[in-house]
Amino acid sequence: MTESKKAVVLVSGGLDSATVLAMVKSRGFDCYALAIDYGQRHRSELDAAARVAEANRAHLKVLSLDLRAIGGSALTDDIDVPEEETPGIPVTYVPARNTILLSLALAWAEVLGSDDIFIGVNAVDYSGYPDCRPEYIKAYQQMARLATQSGVEGGNVTIHTPLIDMTKAEIIKQGNKLGVDYSLTVSCYQADSEGHACGVCDSCRIRKEGFRAAATPDPTCYV
Amino acid sequence: MTESKKAVVLVSGGLDSATVLAMVKSRGFDCYALAIDYGQRHRSELDAAARVAEANRAHLKVLSLDLRAIGGSALTDDIDVPEEETPGIPVTYVPARNTILLSLALAWAEVLGSDDIFIGVNAVDYSGYPDCRPEYIKAYQQMARLATQSGVEGGNVTIHTPLIDMTKAEIIKQGNKLGVDYSLTVSCYQADSEGHACGVCDSCRIRKEGFRAAATPDPTCYV
Repeated sequence: MTESKKAVVLVSGGLDSATVLAMVKSRGFDCYALAIDYGQRHRSELDAAARVAEANRAHLKVLSLDLRAIGGSALTDDIDVPEEETPGIPVTYVPARNTILLSLALAWAEVLGSDDIFIGVNAVDYSGYPDCRPEYIKAYQQMARLATQSGVEGGNVTIHTPLIDMTKAEIIKQGNKLGVDYSLTVSCYQADSEGHACGVCDSCRIRKEGFRAAATPDPTCYV
Repeated sequence: MTESKKAVVLVSGGLDSATVLAMVKSRGFDCYALAIDYGQRHRSELDAAARVAEANRAHLKVLSLDLRAIGGSALTDDIDVPEEETPGIPVTYVPARNTILLSLALAWAEVLGSDDIFIGVNAVDYSGYPDCRPEYIKAYQQMARLATQSGVEGGNVTIHTPLIDMTKAEIIKQGNKLGVDYSLTVSCYQADSEGHACGVCDSCRIRKEGFRAAATPDPTCYV
């Protein structure tokens, strides 16, 4: 029996990363799920991340890094989460978040001897965050191949973004095929401690519309 | 009176970043020093970072991120620090460390409205770490310009590496000109809690040889 290839999968506890984890597992990878407790307002997504990792029998690591000490976002600072659409990049954008998350994943991947990092970014039904765009991911990968010992020794770190071109409805349909239980997930930016969603923030609106467009029941618990 | 431009300077408490901080201050920047408590074996370098920041009247932020949870290095895991030169990339290499440090600096710079990040990497008298090389820094900067809201809005984040082509002796001479007090700094990978240096690790050897080559007294306290 050959050993499965290892993959590091960033999990937030939300719908997208739960789908990615199921996709990676279905491809036969041994999954190492990385969740970051960055002081996010919606703490219950960390509980969701643990549920999602368990459902996929992934190895879970939760790292703590208090980004509230840096602030600058409605998710990490005293800024209200908008409850209707706003023009431009919304205040829920967390400065350099994906760059930080990918860097921690890169470190773990190197220690595990893995070249495969998965992140559930999406550039279709998304909030316009700069660090979800394909050109950013491409540049990150180029940097990552120069950053590490494994890169110097010929490794080819790859940042996989299987959802990047999918609509939210397509993501949900894909997850349904793989048996993802979306009732385990929390997407809301201001979910309460039990994970009940507000239904009106950007993340809730995109998710709700996704279930509608996928013509599948929405298992989200709203407040 | 015009406001000074802000710069984020990564400080470790070592000789190189102390020199960078003095250089940045001498260029008239308002300095924001960022030190990361990543669970490093040589804890006293964090005290040194605070001393160096104070001596330069820099704003200091210390962020905690326990990289021992990832491990894979003599600085963050149960691996001995080598006491003589070893071939290849030494075990003191911390996977993706500079990528992680720069990412936190990038986040802080964005919140401060700064485009200028300084890091004291050096590719001459160094330990061969992949994330100290000019091609890595260049790729990081390209990625950083795509990563952030300020980048999207036309900002030009720059990763400054003023020491990258200097010998250790040149760095020390530059610091002497700027009045850097190197007795405040700790470079040793296994310094004791008072900052006494072992004198035999890679970092100590390079530093000691630097003072010799600069023909300047070595103020390091050895055990």
